[in-house]
Amino acid sequence: MPKISNKGQQMPESPIRKLVPYSEAAKKKGHKVYHLNIGQPDIKTPDVALEAIRKVDMEVLEYSHSAGFESYRKKLAAYYTTHGLPINTEDIIITTGGSEALLFAMGTTMDQGDEIIIPEPFYANYNGFSTASGVKVVPVISGIETGFALPPIADFEKLITPKTKAILICNPGNPTGYLYSKEEMQQLAELVKKHDLFLIADEVYREFVYDGGTHYSVMNIPGLEEYAIMIDSVSKRYSMCGARIGCIVSKNKQVMAAAMKFAQARLSPPTFAQIASEAALDTPKSYFDEVSAEYLKRRNILVEELSKIEGVTVAKPKGAFYCIAKLPVANADDFAQWLLESFDHNGETVMVAPAAGFYSTPGAGQDEVRIAYVLKKKDLVRSVEILKEALKVYNSK
Amino acid sequence: MPKISNKGQQMPESPIRKLVPYSEAAKKKGHKVYHLNIGQPDIKTPDVALEAIRKVDMEVLEYSHSAGFESYRKKLAAYYTTHGLPINTEDIIITTGGSEALLFAMGTTMDQGDEIIIPEPFYANYNGFSTASGVKVVPVISGIETGFALPPIADFEKLITPKTKAILICNPGNPTGYLYSKEEMQQLAELVKKHDLFLIADEVYREFVYDGGTHYSVMNIPGLEEYAIMIDSVSKRYSMCGARIGCIVSKNKQVMAAAMKFAQARLSPPTFAQIASEAALDTPKSYFDEVSAEYLKRRNILVEELSKIEGVTVAKPKGAFYCIAKLPVANADDFAQWLLESFDHNGETVMVAPAAGFYSTPGAGQDEVRIAYVLKKKDLVRSVEILKEALKVYNSK
Repeated sequence: MPKISNKGQQMPESPIRKLVPYSEAAKKKGHKVYHLNIGQPDIKTPDVALEAIRKVDMEVLEYSHSAGFESYRKKLAAYYTTHGLPINTEDIIITTGGSEALLFAMGTTMDQGDEIIIPEPFYANYNGFSTASGVKVVPVISGIETGFALPPIADFEKLITPKTKAILICNPGNPTGYLYSKEEMQQLAELVKKHDLFLIADEVYREFVYDGGTHYSVMNIPGLEEYAIMIDSVSKRYSMCGARIGCIVSKNKQVMAAAMKFAQARLSPPTFAQIASEAALDTPKSYFDEVSAEYLKRRNILVEELSKIEGVTVAKPKGAFYCIAKLPVANADDFAQWLLESFDHNGETVMVAPAAGFYSTPGAGQDEVRIAYVLKKKDLVRSVEILKEALKVYNSK
Repeated sequence: MPKISNKGQQMPESPIRKLVPYSEAAKKKGHKVYHLNIGQPDIKTPDVALEAIRKVDMEVLEYSHSAGFESYRKKLAAYYTTHGLPINTEDIIITTGGSEALLFAMGTTMDQGDEIIIPEPFYANYNGFSTASGVKVVPVISGIETGFALPPIADFEKLITPKTKAILICNPGNPTGYLYSKEEMQQLAELVKKHDLFLIADEVYREFVYDGGTHYSVMNIPGLEEYAIMIDSVSKRYSMCGARIGCIVSKNKQVMAAAMKFAQARLSPPTFAQIASEAALDTPKSYFDEVSAEYLKRRNILVEELSKIEGVTVAKPKGAFYCIAKLPVANADDFAQWLLESFDHNGETVMVAPAAGFYSTPGAGQDEVRIAYVLKKKDLVRSVEILKEALKVYNSK
């Protein structure tokens, strides 16, 4: 019997995956499970996008251009320009989700054994894309005590080797909700220029910024044109996770030429989803105002309620819709499983994502969980109440 | 300025890519260009698939399961069973096109530097997926004189090294149109069992088989369950190239578990396209009868007309909708460019795909072109007429 690859064996599993059977078992017992663990928003997809799909008028569902429909790329460039990002049509390749954009960015900038530095905790699938690309993730730790601010530049420099090819950030951050300041972005820019590295910025949560904060895009740093690669997606912006449409953006012609060859090999991004995504660009501003107000309300209530629990520390998120909470438990993995397997409060329990899966350093984040505030306010309040009751029971075991 | 990866530099370009500017220039001159170069059929997508999209009724465009909607996988397994393939729901992971299924198959079975043996000429993007996966393609040559039959097993065995992990076939073949016989499939099965290799079969043209031929699937060989990986796609079957839906199929649990981790990293295949693909399974048999009759007519007229041209050899395809034709020219690359740049017959010309791009052995296939018979009969006849006139002029230069 032939053996599978080392890569196939080493591909990491989603940090939530092993909890799924426990969640299903809890539901079978008749328990209601509040899902604080997922990044699937409950926000409605804009009508204009769904309407475009219902009106699809074609005889043959054809391939699009490998870089995506030109009409979509043009309109997307105009969208970025309106939002202050100097991006032209030729700087954009439409991808199958931000996921494929990350794969293209890694394949374009790194070979087998090369290293990418990522502030941790980070989006767990960065591990998967790195393993698939044969690239080594080198984590630089950021802590809850600074609210997950950018680690000191000296910490990055300690980790740079001749194999280091890129730094990857998520801004605003999943799972931290941290928003990098202009100064932090400038420090990163100086660092990559000094060491001749690419700066890959996953900016899929750009619209979700609170408290009057400003998002500084990697595309907005003068002099960084040859170093900057932006990853974007429609998934969260328009609550269109199932579309699987994103893009890779860069002013570096060599990067775009190489990424284009990856794009040609897989022929084209999905046609229907591009039609919906192009239409979504006409989403009225009122939609975002409403969505943003809703998330702000959710964040505030979540942070407020969590902070009331003794022993819980929470880093107030400045963007995105996640936060990391430090719990008074030794092992959040065990606690998360216990919540589903052995606990209920009036027939209800919660599912959280243990944060260890978002760290690459062994042992880091073991007493932390990621909470996504993608539930309605009432459900969030109830979820935190359940968490509070659960901690009491768990810690008196 | 940071350098892109070696991989990014080495990613091959599509063999047709460099001809595109010449084709565009010809059109600007007012010339009509018949596209014999592409695999985008003009066949209508089944109504039932497009209708399902127009009826989409959802509020939130959500992620699907990473392996694809369960309802779709179940229905697809039933479809395979009906067609004599013993495939269960759990043997299937829905992918973003056959392209992603090939990437998953390579990532799951091979590491950096491992080797995959592929009979050439082969689908050019196998080169791209191999480069992206860090895998080395080892070609085993098949020739037009045998109609591109399976090369002798001894030829494969000469190429097997400790790094060889898999054999990849396309059946029926793009670009050859060759259909492997039951005996050839059994020979391959013995070979992979003897050397402990995976047999990856790209069977996306399964429905397109002519002259009463029978398609023998890699999933239909008893005792090959642990070795066989099937690649499939809706692109050609339902003329739904733009859907970007395919699947990887295997009975090998380790392969499927590893492929699932690749699938989870990219979250899910596109939702809209899955809805259309699931609905397409209800396409009436009459659709396939009509399509098959149409392709048969096209193949017959194409082969008949091509054979009339002095100096042209054509391998009569038994399946798919491509054929390789050997032309009386020294360099088909140059001829293809000249057709677009310097030739027209009453204001019309043709675009063909030089076959060298489908070979991995340097210098092979230089006097061959791939012709796709995805045009209407009348246009095919006219295209061959233009080709005939062009060859006269080209060879009297």
